[in-house]
Amino acid sequence: MTAASLDAAPLVEPGARLTPPDEVERRLAGLQATLGGRGLDAVLVLQNADLYYYSGTVQQSFLYVPADGRATLFVRKVVERARLESPLEHIVALRGVRELPGAVAERYGRLPARMGLELDVLPVAQARRLEGLFPGTVFVDVGPDIVRQRAVKSPWEIARIAAAAALADEVFRLAPGLLEEGMTEAQFAGRIEAEARRLGHEGIIRMRGFNQEMFYGQLLSGASGTAATFLDTPLGGTGLSPAVAQGVSFRPIRRGDHVVFDFVAVREGYIADFTRILALGPLPDDLARAYDAALRVQEAVRRVAGPGVTCSSVWSTAANAAESLGYGDGFMGSGEGKVRFVGHGVGLELDELPVLASSELELAEGMVFALEPKFVLPGRGAIGVENTWHVTADGIAALTTASEDVVEVAR
Amino acid sequence: MTAASLDAAPLVEPGARLTPPDEVERRLAGLQATLGGRGLDAVLVLQNADLYYYSGTVQQSFLYVPADGRATLFVRKVVERARLESPLEHIVALRGVRELPGAVAERYGRLPARMGLELDVLPVAQARRLEGLFPGTVFVDVGPDIVRQRAVKSPWEIARIAAAAALADEVFRLAPGLLEEGMTEAQFAGRIEAEARRLGHEGIIRMRGFNQEMFYGQLLSGASGTAATFLDTPLGGTGLSPAVAQGVSFRPIRRGDHVVFDFVAVREGYIADFTRILALGPLPDDLARAYDAALRVQEAVRRVAGPGVTCSSVWSTAANAAESLGYGDGFMGSGEGKVRFVGHGVGLELDELPVLASSELELAEGMVFALEPKFVLPGRGAIGVENTWHVTADGIAALTTASEDVVEVAR
Repeated sequence: MTAASLDAAPLVEPGARLTPPDEVERRLAGLQATLGGRGLDAVLVLQNADLYYYSGTVQQSFLYVPADGRATLFVRKVVERARLESPLEHIVALRGVRELPGAVAERYGRLPARMGLELDVLPVAQARRLEGLFPGTVFVDVGPDIVRQRAVKSPWEIARIAAAAALADEVFRLAPGLLEEGMTEAQFAGRIEAEARRLGHEGIIRMRGFNQEMFYGQLLSGASGTAATFLDTPLGGTGLSPAVAQGVSFRPIRRGDHVVFDFVAVREGYIADFTRILALGPLPDDLARAYDAALRVQEAVRRVAGPGVTCSSVWSTAANAAESLGYGDGFMGSGEGKVRFVGHGVGLELDELPVLASSELELAEGMVFALEPKFVLPGRGAIGVENTWHVTADGIAALTTASEDVVEVAR
Repeated sequence: MTAASLDAAPLVEPGARLTPPDEVERRLAGLQATLGGRGLDAVLVLQNADLYYYSGTVQQSFLYVPADGRATLFVRKVVERARLESPLEHIVALRGVRELPGAVAERYGRLPARMGLELDVLPVAQARRLEGLFPGTVFVDVGPDIVRQRAVKSPWEIARIAAAAALADEVFRLAPGLLEEGMTEAQFAGRIEAEARRLGHEGIIRMRGFNQEMFYGQLLSGASGTAATFLDTPLGGTGLSPAVAQGVSFRPIRRGDHVVFDFVAVREGYIADFTRILALGPLPDDLARAYDAALRVQEAVRRVAGPGVTCSSVWSTAANAAESLGYGDGFMGSGEGKVRFVGHGVGLELDELPVLASSELELAEGMVFALEPKFVLPGRGAIGVENTWHVTADGIAALTTASEDVVEVAR
């Protein structure tokens, strides 16, 4: 028996940050404010990202938030871990969902007449089971309310996203040393991902949208960036098979190719999205011009974006800039692959608000989004830039900070 | 302009296998047989794994399967890709879901009175939107029917899972050369994952269960294997933070540690699940004895499992064997982390049928499952073995084939 194997396993990574009590308190108060406005007696939070947001822990659990008073986390598994991770005072063990109505009634004196649930993500079969357990309760969708609340980040959350952004910056700094002519996109991606893991990338990229899937991003070489996919993203990629028809392929990266380094970083649950360009040799002139146009579109947005500006106005600024630079056709994809947004919120999920599209949602201080002006030039490739920005008191500021120069790889 | 960048991007990876027409035909016929028995006029398939199973392609699409006659894939995005990948004859472009009822009526002459949907995975909000578009149609959950059909694999599917199993075997063959004393679990995982990617691992591990998440498996060293998580798995791990509280941690792998190499391989959409043991130095006697017990449990199951045997009988065979070997307490987890199954179906999703638990479902030829007898010894670590098996005409046969000997790593 060695010293090493005598250790007990920590239930919480020793260096990890716990969500501070005041964060959880403020978030729950925000949710309760929404609740009152919608005539709801309570919200039952069920989904992993939302559970983490409102409780600081991801367990098999139900977070019951009454309109007034203190929330309770009912935990089927793992209670011990929930108690270590969550600042909530009321954490109650539950053997299964069947016990939930009784446990709620016991703690709160009654069952809710109208209860909010994340009906935007909760499967019908599960909702029906819950309806059977709460026969007198009307279920109301609060998914969109939660999504709107989560769009505005606290300084603590922005610091978490900045840490994810730093991970993206650092991985990109290492990328030129990992790229060799002749390796496949999949092989290069593996090398990149290995560095990301060493630095603490958590792998799982949460997305709220049904059927949306993402694995680290889209590292696409040469013309690969022009392959459109089912995803709501401007670039897609060929993928390794029709089963997972997006992302890297077995295409060898050759001299003369450029690589769109679209990388999603996740640290401590928080996401930053990032795109830069590597090139094996000088970037061909037409792509270099398009890349310059992407930087100009980004700059046009940077000049106008800030609190009170609508997403719609950001979107039209970007689309008009692309058009006037002569890149209207391939802006944000080509043909069937074209999407009608130039950016999306990021946080605990990759597909958050604000969506920088034709929407009257106004930017507000604390919102965080990825801005990704990209062009698809059929037969030539995709190109563009992406940074993660937060909305400040009077504008926007980038959290990803790596140089935007195209990195030419010699070997 | 180089030769490389002149290439058009292929929409389908040149070496990838397309789903053969007779596979799709047989699967759709099987679904239609279920449909008749349930008094349904049609099924509308929406979820990625199911879309791939019944159409051979994953697009933003709706697969409409009438009780009689030919199915139609209505595709919002990407039609061109769907036509290249799917053997279906009827692939129709659709601008959005609002056009669906009209398109169905146009093609089939009427709208269904009773329509099956995957209500086990479809979010309530999306179901409500569809109900608004099909106001005269009753929606019925066919998720469980689809899951039951998908549990029995064709020889073509078993060959795909065998390819995933071969990837797991190969990655494990490379693992000893990638492990160095002092590296963290996360760093070792990154090296393993890089090799997996080079070999074509697709990264995304699809799971049907709400809130279930998996990233490559659980590569846990020393006592890490004893940390229970929210997942329905016997082992869990500390994870890198409470936000993604499972899997690898920053724990350094030290001399005297063993590593539970629990690895999920995905090739061309199909999954194999696999566990072996590495050790930095000789495996301590108590863990070696427990590992031997896991192999004996596996052998006990191998002797009884085959067509017509109930899951319940497999489960009790395993649980009794563990008990009689003196390992009842830590079998399939410890304390809150204990799960009540010894295996699970694998295919296009990681959490398929059959679940080797207290269930009267009978094994049938063509079913594929991961059998994972594992023990958690508090304060000491987890240990066990896992292979992916298919049910043959008269028993079960392993698809994962790597030696089950503990691999001692010298350096």
